[in-house]
Amino acid sequence: MTVDTIAPRRHRVVIIGSGFGGLFAAKHLKRADVDVTLIAKTTHHLFQPLLYQVATGILSVGEIAPATRIILRKQRNAEVLLGDVVGVDLKNKTVTSKLLDWERVTPFDSLIVAAGAQQSYFGNDHFEAFAPGMKTVDDALELRGRILGAFEAAEVTTSEAERKRRLTFVVVGAGPTGVEVVGQIAELADRTLKGAFRTIDPTQARVILVEAAPAVLPPMGPKLGLKAQRRLEKMGVEVKLNTMVTDVDYLGLTVKEGGQDGEDTRIEAAVKVWSAGVQASPLGKQIAEQSDGTEVDRAGRVVVEPDLTVKGHPNVFVIGDLMSVPGVPGMAQGAIQGAVYATKQIKNELKGSAAPADRKPFKYLNKGSMATVSRFNAVAQIGKVEFGGFLAWLAWLGLHLYYLVGSRNRIVAVYSWFITFLGRGRSQLAITERWVFARRALEQSRDQSAQKSIG
Amino acid sequence: MTVDTIAPRRHRVVIIGSGFGGLFAAKHLKRADVDVTLIAKTTHHLFQPLLYQVATGILSVGEIAPATRIILRKQRNAEVLLGDVVGVDLKNKTVTSKLLDWERVTPFDSLIVAAGAQQSYFGNDHFEAFAPGMKTVDDALELRGRILGAFEAAEVTTSEAERKRRLTFVVVGAGPTGVEVVGQIAELADRTLKGAFRTIDPTQARVILVEAAPAVLPPMGPKLGLKAQRRLEKMGVEVKLNTMVTDVDYLGLTVKEGGQDGEDTRIEAAVKVWSAGVQASPLGKQIAEQSDGTEVDRAGRVVVEPDLTVKGHPNVFVIGDLMSVPGVPGMAQGAIQGAVYATKQIKNELKGSAAPADRKPFKYLNKGSMATVSRFNAVAQIGKVEFGGFLAWLAWLGLHLYYLVGSRNRIVAVYSWFITFLGRGRSQLAITERWVFARRALEQSRDQSAQKSIG
Repeated sequence: MTVDTIAPRRHRVVIIGSGFGGLFAAKHLKRADVDVTLIAKTTHHLFQPLLYQVATGILSVGEIAPATRIILRKQRNAEVLLGDVVGVDLKNKTVTSKLLDWERVTPFDSLIVAAGAQQSYFGNDHFEAFAPGMKTVDDALELRGRILGAFEAAEVTTSEAERKRRLTFVVVGAGPTGVEVVGQIAELADRTLKGAFRTIDPTQARVILVEAAPAVLPPMGPKLGLKAQRRLEKMGVEVKLNTMVTDVDYLGLTVKEGGQDGEDTRIEAAVKVWSAGVQASPLGKQIAEQSDGTEVDRAGRVVVEPDLTVKGHPNVFVIGDLMSVPGVPGMAQGAIQGAVYATKQIKNELKGSAAPADRKPFKYLNKGSMATVSRFNAVAQIGKVEFGGFLAWLAWLGLHLYYLVGSRNRIVAVYSWFITFLGRGRSQLAITERWVFARRALEQSRDQSAQKSIG
Repeated sequence: MTVDTIAPRRHRVVIIGSGFGGLFAAKHLKRADVDVTLIAKTTHHLFQPLLYQVATGILSVGEIAPATRIILRKQRNAEVLLGDVVGVDLKNKTVTSKLLDWERVTPFDSLIVAAGAQQSYFGNDHFEAFAPGMKTVDDALELRGRILGAFEAAEVTTSEAERKRRLTFVVVGAGPTGVEVVGQIAELADRTLKGAFRTIDPTQARVILVEAAPAVLPPMGPKLGLKAQRRLEKMGVEVKLNTMVTDVDYLGLTVKEGGQDGEDTRIEAAVKVWSAGVQASPLGKQIAEQSDGTEVDRAGRVVVEPDLTVKGHPNVFVIGDLMSVPGVPGMAQGAIQGAVYATKQIKNELKGSAAPADRKPFKYLNKGSMATVSRFNAVAQIGKVEFGGFLAWLAWLGLHLYYLVGSRNRIVAVYSWFITFLGRGRSQLAITERWVFARRALEQSRDQSAQKSIG
């Protein structure tokens, strides 16, 4: 083969991110006459809605995090690159990714940015070491170590006050993730760990859900929120509404109950989980700054045009948790619909049958939302229909089985659920030396004390 | 209840370690009139012989590391404490354990020390960051990140030399663990990852097994060693015998081929796995020093009396990888037999039917040994019978199913093997940001460079 025979370069679509937005964008370009490069900073596609089950010992990492390149193995027009995208240059149409000691510049014709969001501490980033979020596999394993490690630590201590502190679990934020993780911590303590200790009684653990708003699951409306709250309270979870977190440290947290005018109260707690808000990837701001008239909202999400692009760059789509479109929640279905929309425009325009000017605005179809509260109990909202209890839980089960990518994972997940929900076992209670009981938080706490004593 | 009604204190057996020795000791005291305290620095019982399958993406951590306290939940005379034992005081009969910010002193009447061994670098501890061992769950997850991360890194690079380096995998030590892990790296590259990359061809990965001795699997004899070697070579593994490792760094390793008089050769390799030797827990030395006339061998193992105790302390048993008894290999069966023997002496003497002076010496029954080379292929030695191939693999399969603790894990493990050995998939290919591709090694390498440029 000589240089002359090189084929003309195909239209290259670069996708940033391997979450629901990024993966579905790649898949929907399967039959398109394009080259696809998916760049992500993890090697897996994370099924984030089930991450709380990794944190509480029900599922293994592999069950909710299949390797992206194995999913796309047979899609010959797609390549997958591991890298943390640090720069997007809209003018020169390049993406720069870095990881450890390698760096790469990838040119694009079309760009789909699905870089997602991370936990937000609303300017209090020092909370993070003490109250990890629930966004990555690392987060979930860290939390698993802290949650199970706290019971171990309580069993060992001889101080009654310290035992109580170690058996107190606080989840901050009563959105779906917060409700699901707090419910599972309660079931882990009440069912799985019952009888497994000799000094402590795990069923006596204090499990608290803290929420600044006046209701649980605020976006799902007062009726379902109350249903979920009642169920959690029946399980022994203390639900503290209208409660703001003002400080978090190694030993516990300080909250203000009853809104702004309330008084500061201290909760001594070994385990704190943060699920109170999200902050979009910094790539959002970087992209907006390169486009005249494109803004980011308070959470750092890009306020996109009706066709999900940034002003002046009809080839640059922003989708998923990184885009800000009124009425579209930061959930899987919003990301998937954005991916389908963006890839459809690219495909149509490559065929020559349409131009960016002809694009119809993106329309979000709300298929409903749901949250599991405990085994056999969930709340669901589909259109104007709201329901809770066992029926909603069955709906949750069916939906998650349908969406769990890869049939292999599905079989093991069902088996794991069978063990946990019908029985009381959990298959993944292992914690490693590196994850165990807030080692990182302890170290940070010592650093801070050292700095204070120096300063 | 008043103070008067407190029952007389029962004989307390403290067990250090939750491996095969520690767990089986606890279980064999189930019906004894004793209180058992098992102290371990992990919360799980690790099925170490299958750790290489976690490292190579076949099994999840939970499948080979069930929680110790769940296994012992129904054994009411046993308690499990998480803690790193730092001190054993034979005179005052106490054990001191520490972990993070807690410390605990536990008194004992009888003590069973099954604290095991860790990887040995024969005095070159700086190798460890670059060539992790295969002893803990953390090790396996770290290696999984490095192995899979190396393929990702190779796909990203544009330098041909660097691509080759990233696709070179070296396992040091051709004992059972070394043979098993090198075989699985080869199958991962040749089968599971085939077709999943666009720039590199994973089947072209260079996989090398380095061994200082003149044979593979030295303790299994020349016939089986040669069988295993032939099979590995057929799979494309380069087997370098009579080869000593003289240096390991971030970029690769230096070896001396052909024994002491050989010349230094450089192998550029991103992934190095160390399975060349073991060093017993430092508790061995600590215990020997408290007993007149008890020694430790070169690997730090305690040279025990014929009844597995230390001289002058018939109530202190040392078992498993921490004991040195001629003819007993550092394998699960040796640890289990030691546990059965030690607990039998304790039970007999508590009944009053025997005294320490009456003990018959410990006798090791060699039930044979085996190592898997690849799917459908193993080598096995049972008594004087030696065999290899598919039959040996079936024997391996049956034995490991039998010994995998907990029927739940067994079902999922079989399912995972079905996927990997009959198909070519692997359920646990997820690597986390913290594990990926030798981050720790890179940092250490930078530290060393910085020190060199300062020095």
